[in-house]
Amino acid sequence: MAEETGTGTGAKLAVVCGNGSLPSEVLAAAHEAGRDPLAIGIKGEAAASIEAFSPALWFDWGEIGKLVTALKRNDVRDLVLIGGVSQRPDFRSILGDFGTMRRLPRILKALRKGDDGLLKAVIMLFEEEGFHVIGAHEIAPTLLASAGPVGRHVPDQDAMRDLELALTAARTLGGLDIGQAAVAVNGRVIATEAAEGTDGMLRRCIDLKREGRVRWKGRAGVLAKCVKPGQELRVDLPSIGPETVDHAVRIGLAGIAIDAGHVLIANRAETIARADREGLFLFGLDEPDAKRDGTGDA
Amino acid sequence: MAEETGTGTGAKLAVVCGNGSLPSEVLAAAHEAGRDPLAIGIKGEAAASIEAFSPALWFDWGEIGKLVTALKRNDVRDLVLIGGVSQRPDFRSILGDFGTMRRLPRILKALRKGDDGLLKAVIMLFEEEGFHVIGAHEIAPTLLASAGPVGRHVPDQDAMRDLELALTAARTLGGLDIGQAAVAVNGRVIATEAAEGTDGMLRRCIDLKREGRVRWKGRAGVLAKCVKPGQELRVDLPSIGPETVDHAVRIGLAGIAIDAGHVLIANRAETIARADREGLFLFGLDEPDAKRDGTGDA
Repeated sequence: MAEETGTGTGAKLAVVCGNGSLPSEVLAAAHEAGRDPLAIGIKGEAAASIEAFSPALWFDWGEIGKLVTALKRNDVRDLVLIGGVSQRPDFRSILGDFGTMRRLPRILKALRKGDDGLLKAVIMLFEEEGFHVIGAHEIAPTLLASAGPVGRHVPDQDAMRDLELALTAARTLGGLDIGQAAVAVNGRVIATEAAEGTDGMLRRCIDLKREGRVRWKGRAGVLAKCVKPGQELRVDLPSIGPETVDHAVRIGLAGIAIDAGHVLIANRAETIARADREGLFLFGLDEPDAKRDGTGDA
Repeated sequence: MAEETGTGTGAKLAVVCGNGSLPSEVLAAAHEAGRDPLAIGIKGEAAASIEAFSPALWFDWGEIGKLVTALKRNDVRDLVLIGGVSQRPDFRSILGDFGTMRRLPRILKALRKGDDGLLKAVIMLFEEEGFHVIGAHEIAPTLLASAGPVGRHVPDQDAMRDLELALTAARTLGGLDIGQAAVAVNGRVIATEAAEGTDGMLRRCIDLKREGRVRWKGRAGVLAKCVKPGQELRVDLPSIGPETVDHAVRIGLAGIAIDAGHVLIANRAETIARADREGLFLFGLDEPDAKRDGTGDA
């Protein structure tokens, strides 16, 4: 139900788009569901392809006040925030308009926190303005990884041991709100993710191998990517995609393990096709157990 | 103390030297203590300066058998292993001589383990040959960090909070035998160490800041460097030095926290002088508490 004119069959939906292919996929799924979404591009992040169905509105970090005004003018009630953000905005770039100024104390507070604190503060900010922030997976549930093998290949015994090691590291780091991914090879965790992000960590693994700091022959080892306990699933679902598979192949990993139901697969067909072709397994881990849910605050 | 006749007042000491300035410092301390040490250089790692007092013997990774023979011929009983190793040896480079071949199964097993497992296996290997492996700090105790401020500057309240965060991350990773260092800035852990080593992690922090993935003004944040629970202190004491201070300055950190009594300070005078000049604090953390000792296996 639209706020002011109420002509639609559902509440008006806007998709705030960061980088990567996921924003376009969520927009496409919303169109298929008849939601006629409004695309909002973050300048310098979102791809031009978000305009595939209708023109997008584009905003800078410094235009949060303008964005809120535009959302209200378009009768938007539901909001999806999806896609990556390559840079945290700095103080100057968000000092753009009056609306931003008014929200500044909360924004500054958010910028000083860990990822999770930042994203929760962003949600709170939008909800205080009367919007309803929903998860991308609520609009496009088929993007979520399912449990068990995704694709043709399955982990062997060595890979299962590395999977457990990487998983323990990723979940432990997640519990400290540091990162959500780790790589283990032949019984040793060789990389853990913090502010560099998963791609940064994977590029480091490629360097470590090239420099001879880690060595192995053939395919071995696992990238585990998890949700953090208490992670804000509405705006911060971890994701993998074709590039993740490419990185894993370059490192020489045997496969990738992800939390089923909590990790998005961008460009799913292509991601699975590349993994299948390269002999890499993709494995969806069972739903996080009760203990993990209990340690979070979401 | 002659080499072959064994007329000395103490057991003959050999110092197996990796890279960095610590090997020369340990050799100098041993000379001062009248131990007349035999310097053993690892080719491609040890500096020429290890020959300051007497000629060194040089060995390749592939010459472990030859090394053991030379140590025995020189009546060596005590052995110190000190300095960094920039590359883990690969299988081919240790297939050098017959002595290595005989020890190969154990060496291969060691190479597949985490750092700690590797080093413990190396010690075991030498002790099985009848040598007594001792810690560098037993020869050169003044290299160890003391508790409290080391140098002129002290952490403020913000730095103490970051210190706690970095310390928790470093000790948690240490407990999983992943790494022993972490960096926290303004309430957020931005980097954790795994196979890249502490210098690699610090260079990443410089990149993260340059690329805008982390942002702050002025000096903030702390590098914490700890021992792992159960760490093999005889051959793997963590160390900092002038380059660590240089990295911290380039990142824009407020200071460095290290486990007192368990972290070596290489080139101590220069390290402290640079930190003092740059306004950086060096802080020795109290001895690891009972709980930590209880979780280790050493």
